[in-house]
Amino acid sequence: MTERRKILELPVGVKDFLPEEARAKRQMENDLAELFRRWGYREVVTPTFEYYQTLTPNGWNGEEDYLFKFIDRQGRILALRYDMTMPIARLVSMRLRSEPLPLRLYYLANVFRYETPQAGRQREFYQAGVELIGARGPAADAEVIALAVEALEATGLPDFKVGIGQVEVIKGILEDIALPSEGIRSIKQAIARKDHVGLEQALEQYGVSEQDRRLLITVSNLHGSIEVLDRAFELVESERARKALQELRQVFEVLEGYGVSGRIFLDLGILRDFDYYTGTVFEGYVAGLGFPICGGGRYDHLLGKFGYACPATGFALGVERVMMALKNIDREKPTGIRYLVCGSPYGKVLEKARELREKGYSVEVDLLGLSPEEIADYAKKRGIGEVIWVGEEAN
Amino acid sequence: MTERRKILELPVGVKDFLPEEARAKRQMENDLAELFRRWGYREVVTPTFEYYQTLTPNGWNGEEDYLFKFIDRQGRILALRYDMTMPIARLVSMRLRSEPLPLRLYYLANVFRYETPQAGRQREFYQAGVELIGARGPAADAEVIALAVEALEATGLPDFKVGIGQVEVIKGILEDIALPSEGIRSIKQAIARKDHVGLEQALEQYGVSEQDRRLLITVSNLHGSIEVLDRAFELVESERARKALQELRQVFEVLEGYGVSGRIFLDLGILRDFDYYTGTVFEGYVAGLGFPICGGGRYDHLLGKFGYACPATGFALGVERVMMALKNIDREKPTGIRYLVCGSPYGKVLEKARELREKGYSVEVDLLGLSPEEIADYAKKRGIGEVIWVGEEAN
Repeated sequence: MTERRKILELPVGVKDFLPEEARAKRQMENDLAELFRRWGYREVVTPTFEYYQTLTPNGWNGEEDYLFKFIDRQGRILALRYDMTMPIARLVSMRLRSEPLPLRLYYLANVFRYETPQAGRQREFYQAGVELIGARGPAADAEVIALAVEALEATGLPDFKVGIGQVEVIKGILEDIALPSEGIRSIKQAIARKDHVGLEQALEQYGVSEQDRRLLITVSNLHGSIEVLDRAFELVESERARKALQELRQVFEVLEGYGVSGRIFLDLGILRDFDYYTGTVFEGYVAGLGFPICGGGRYDHLLGKFGYACPATGFALGVERVMMALKNIDREKPTGIRYLVCGSPYGKVLEKARELREKGYSVEVDLLGLSPEEIADYAKKRGIGEVIWVGEEAN
Repeated sequence: MTERRKILELPVGVKDFLPEEARAKRQMENDLAELFRRWGYREVVTPTFEYYQTLTPNGWNGEEDYLFKFIDRQGRILALRYDMTMPIARLVSMRLRSEPLPLRLYYLANVFRYETPQAGRQREFYQAGVELIGARGPAADAEVIALAVEALEATGLPDFKVGIGQVEVIKGILEDIALPSEGIRSIKQAIARKDHVGLEQALEQYGVSEQDRRLLITVSNLHGSIEVLDRAFELVESERARKALQELRQVFEVLEGYGVSGRIFLDLGILRDFDYYTGTVFEGYVAGLGFPICGGGRYDHLLGKFGYACPATGFALGVERVMMALKNIDREKPTGIRYLVCGSPYGKVLEKARELREKGYSVEVDLLGLSPEEIADYAKKRGIGEVIWVGEEAN
């Protein structure tokens, strides 16, 4: 019994999708695949595991704990992919160098992170996303953000917002303050996590001046409509930061042309988790979830690590996170008519089933020779709307 | 440079799907999902890895080399799933016990086996399949076989055959011969692999009598139409084997009702790789491939290992294997019209793109401000049929 209980146990942080959830997941993924296709993106599929060194071309910045690693029989270290940006950068550098730029690629894939499981944080989870490779400038940034907005709309979420920032604003400000690299990392991490207490502590610990402290806290809290950029311009002196603000304004202007700016707000505190971002970044939110439902941004130096220097931007949407957000909304269940065909002779049952299947219905046949009462009970439990009796029993 | 080459390397036995292959894969998977839905099957998704002991509830019969294993930070052994039958048996026993039987479930999933890579044998590969749980008897066996035939038809393969056998025929014959369990395993393995030399050797090694040798070789080579069963009846004395032959005849008769018997032949040598099969088994083949493209059968004792004794049958189709088979056939490439919209102002470009996307077309916009010559070149390289200039450049 102990043994049995053990084999009926799942590792923490991974889950089954039962039929209803699996159907919702497939529907969402198909809708997103169709949307991405219409925007000219083409799907790629990469292996679930790769060499550890391929997934960490930079060396890894202390987040190594994220990785599920194992060793092949030649002693080489493999790891489960923790995102799709890295494998696609590798794939493009390896196999698609001769293709004309820009490359528009999409994926629907599961990724793995050794995290402490909690709501919205699983150790295996599904992402839908795109990478736009070989184009820099506001039109490219805006395309990916507009597509993220349309992707969230396609999922049926009625109410979401996408916040846009630019990592170079904070990086530019920090550059002008003499700080050790751990200091920069602590401050950026606290800002990225909107950890106000942690930010104050880090600023104090690394001896940042009162004036610079106020600047960093104020700028990283700036969020709202386009006026945010004017306000930041008044405050910020760093040339690098001011250039980033200009670029952000241009991206916002293109987004107005997409007709999605009603979904957008500016947030100069968005820095994202991964270190590879170099420009515009963004995150999608719904009320009541404590984590973003999508995120992405520009990463112009990553492909260079794989020997193919090329600007790039992209985003990923968290499939389970969106499903969680949708569960919080009252929705009618789209069931579709389903049939159960029974009776005899069995040839007639099969004929009727074939006819209904050809029309696109979901059709089961009785395999157990159940009585009419048992059939009615089964159909009710299974939620099957229509029971059809053929042949002799039909009379 | 050495470093760079290293990070641009994939582990053996895994692969990328570039856009054209990924599109073919998605198309096939969507078609199969739709077919399975029409037959009343519902999708489930299980985790990519589980506890080692869950995936080997039986202990493992010497094929442990197949498994990709790793250890979590609590020291428990995890493994990547090597098929979907085991995880679904676990899922049903854990989560779906209260559902009425039979349960019809389907999956589209990648599985992992540490094999020596060769044509048709990868270390990560994709399967589409079904499990029919809680029904025994010829109607259930035939449903799964008929669905396998329809699945292969749905992939567009023009020419395939499905061979049907019954593991109890050979098991029944072997039961009447006094043999050690390694002897039984060697003989069954040689038969399953159609390894005639290996079979002769094993029969000799374990001292099987001349008469029994001839019987095993003859019966395991019997294949063809329904007369095969008559011939086997004449030869076989084991009651267990004769009962299996009767059951196989009934399955074949139901298959005639499905109108798929033209795709079917009988083959008493089919035993399948995994030890969990207990009755009717089958494999699909196309000419010119040295391995089956699908396979399955009845496994009535597996769910009991998870504490939910319940008969079951199912099959899995090898997605890449079918794709390989399709590649051997000349086919027109279904491209679909694709557009590239360029010109200025950019707002007009976006408007035109939106309009075409709403009609369902795949539409790219120019992000790089290319010249008309460069646009023409890009469209040609990318295989885009229609370039649309809007605004000023349109004149």
